[in-house]
Amino acid sequence: MNEAILKVISQIQPPDAQASARAQQKLDGLCKPPGSLGKLEEMAVKLAGIRGDIVTALSRRCVLIAAADNGICQAGVASAAQEFTLAQTLAFTRGETGVAVLAKYAGADLMVADVGILSDFDAPGVLNLKVAHGTKNFAEGPAMTREQAVQAFCAGFSMVERAAAAGYDVIGVGEMGIGNTSTASAVLCALTGCPVEDAVGRGAGLTEEKLARKRNIIAQGLSCNRPDASDPVDVIAKVGGFDIAAMAGIYLAAAAKRLPVVADGFISCVAALAAIRLCPDVKGYVFLSHASAEPGTAALMRALDMEPPLRLDMRLGEGSGCPVAFLLLDCACAVIRDMAPLNLADVGEEYTKTVLKQG
Amino acid sequence: MNEAILKVISQIQPPDAQASARAQQKLDGLCKPPGSLGKLEEMAVKLAGIRGDIVTALSRRCVLIAAADNGICQAGVASAAQEFTLAQTLAFTRGETGVAVLAKYAGADLMVADVGILSDFDAPGVLNLKVAHGTKNFAEGPAMTREQAVQAFCAGFSMVERAAAAGYDVIGVGEMGIGNTSTASAVLCALTGCPVEDAVGRGAGLTEEKLARKRNIIAQGLSCNRPDASDPVDVIAKVGGFDIAAMAGIYLAAAAKRLPVVADGFISCVAALAAIRLCPDVKGYVFLSHASAEPGTAALMRALDMEPPLRLDMRLGEGSGCPVAFLLLDCACAVIRDMAPLNLADVGEEYTKTVLKQG
Repeated sequence: MNEAILKVISQIQPPDAQASARAQQKLDGLCKPPGSLGKLEEMAVKLAGIRGDIVTALSRRCVLIAAADNGICQAGVASAAQEFTLAQTLAFTRGETGVAVLAKYAGADLMVADVGILSDFDAPGVLNLKVAHGTKNFAEGPAMTREQAVQAFCAGFSMVERAAAAGYDVIGVGEMGIGNTSTASAVLCALTGCPVEDAVGRGAGLTEEKLARKRNIIAQGLSCNRPDASDPVDVIAKVGGFDIAAMAGIYLAAAAKRLPVVADGFISCVAALAAIRLCPDVKGYVFLSHASAEPGTAALMRALDMEPPLRLDMRLGEGSGCPVAFLLLDCACAVIRDMAPLNLADVGEEYTKTVLKQG
Repeated sequence: MNEAILKVISQIQPPDAQASARAQQKLDGLCKPPGSLGKLEEMAVKLAGIRGDIVTALSRRCVLIAAADNGICQAGVASAAQEFTLAQTLAFTRGETGVAVLAKYAGADLMVADVGILSDFDAPGVLNLKVAHGTKNFAEGPAMTREQAVQAFCAGFSMVERAAAAGYDVIGVGEMGIGNTSTASAVLCALTGCPVEDAVGRGAGLTEEKLARKRNIIAQGLSCNRPDASDPVDVIAKVGGFDIAAMAGIYLAAAAKRLPVVADGFISCVAALAAIRLCPDVKGYVFLSHASAEPGTAALMRALDMEPPLRLDMRLGEGSGCPVAFLLLDCACAVIRDMAPLNLADVGEEYTKTVLKQG
């Protein structure tokens, strides 16, 4: 394992179980049956563990977006032209895309980084962390070298450094890269042993014929590259993308900085799985947002052993689920901050007779 | 059927399919793959049908809460003392409960009505629409007379009249009434033929022994009252509650006024089902919020043939899921209002070659 990645992993501590217990105790004393606010309570408990104290607000939030091109597009797996990677990346900075509009509504900023877009361009709103001009076609060999994979992880570290320095309380993890449902599916298969048929879907909109082709190409990429499931960096280098590597880096660095980090859909969650495989303690810092409509989601959620709170049938990517999840985290903060304690005097002696004795 | 209810039903029109089509067309032209924002797009399309035009904001929102006591508590089916109905109703007006805190965060008001609380009380924040001092124990006979059921529906109509007069753009439907998971389960069984074991759960927190007792009592209530599945008013009168009748009235009146209406969890959704059985066009006005942790939810969602966007494992009631769903509706409005159209010039000739020809 590379030193830069090992160094970040060495800084990751488990969440603070005592702070979580204090949050749970406070929640159990509020004017509601214990546990009756379900996942909102779980979020409040998890946030307390991450920050080491009960969290009453997450005022500053940002979606970090890693944009890169994927050589696998040369094999014809994607429904959209590769030019879309750059076009949408620029559209983020103009506030025009799905994630930009939802982030604005949720009071969140965007941090957009080029970690491997094909072409060179100059846009003041996009961080230049380019590793290379796109990856290679993984159907024919490794998508990138191991050194490039490490460099892309470091791009993610750098994005979190900036987010922490800017004082964000919570971050989300998004991506832009035509062809990245293919790379994410391949990474999922390699990490979990999940069959290609279960992991590969239509992405943003393939025909049945193109879907069959996409499955064949991914299977070919897996068999020719033989990624090592026990080494997520090898998996991402061989069949992943710069965006997935950078996102995995974001999850690791967020955990190291004790920053709550929200995953988006299929590709973002695959990167989260890679980070958790590198360091299981990362899981204590990750919040899911929605269950992507991408068919690999079921296998992915089993591998993560987590359940997303939103079922919106979204399949846009970009980090578009993160602002919506920020709103749910706000709800969790409101519950633990503003609900009144249960006042037994309100319900009188009858309550103590009938309820407290039932335990 | 009673005249007052028939009059409201006669005012319900199907949503405006042309306005929905215009919303769909606009969404399909935005800078994203068609349909990729899933349920957020469906919400925007449905809102357009309800209001007759594309909806760009739902500025004023309110959760309507019907509070009432249930005679079935005499049979020992509930985990909490009946005094909680009044205590929590008063706590709503002090902003202390789950729904109050979440509504405040989501910028929503509460309208709280006593439609049948046991005791008399004087609280300026609670509308007095009391039908009676609680229902009767439905294990031994009808919970209420048909006249009382109609009166409770009219209480719901009156709440929507007030909400419409106050200029709310969207309303939610909540309840408070110890014992109302029992009444809601009985109504669900009667309306759908669903077995008692599938419809009855622990409510706010019963032991295994008490759960078995609750199931037996509900089965007894169903067999002694023989509610007529084809007549939802009869079903609610015999095994329901004043809160469920008032909520069913809210759904009917909201549809009549072309007001988007958000259901909360198990009890609120059972009332929605009753309203939809009375008038199928109501369904076009109803948005679900979350899938309650109550086990009857699966049978209920099958009967409604709808899927809620939130999976929060909540089981608090009160309307607590409605403010969270208002935030999702806000997201839907933001998408259709703020996203930019797809600009083919951004991606150039390559796009037209590769994407448009794929359809």
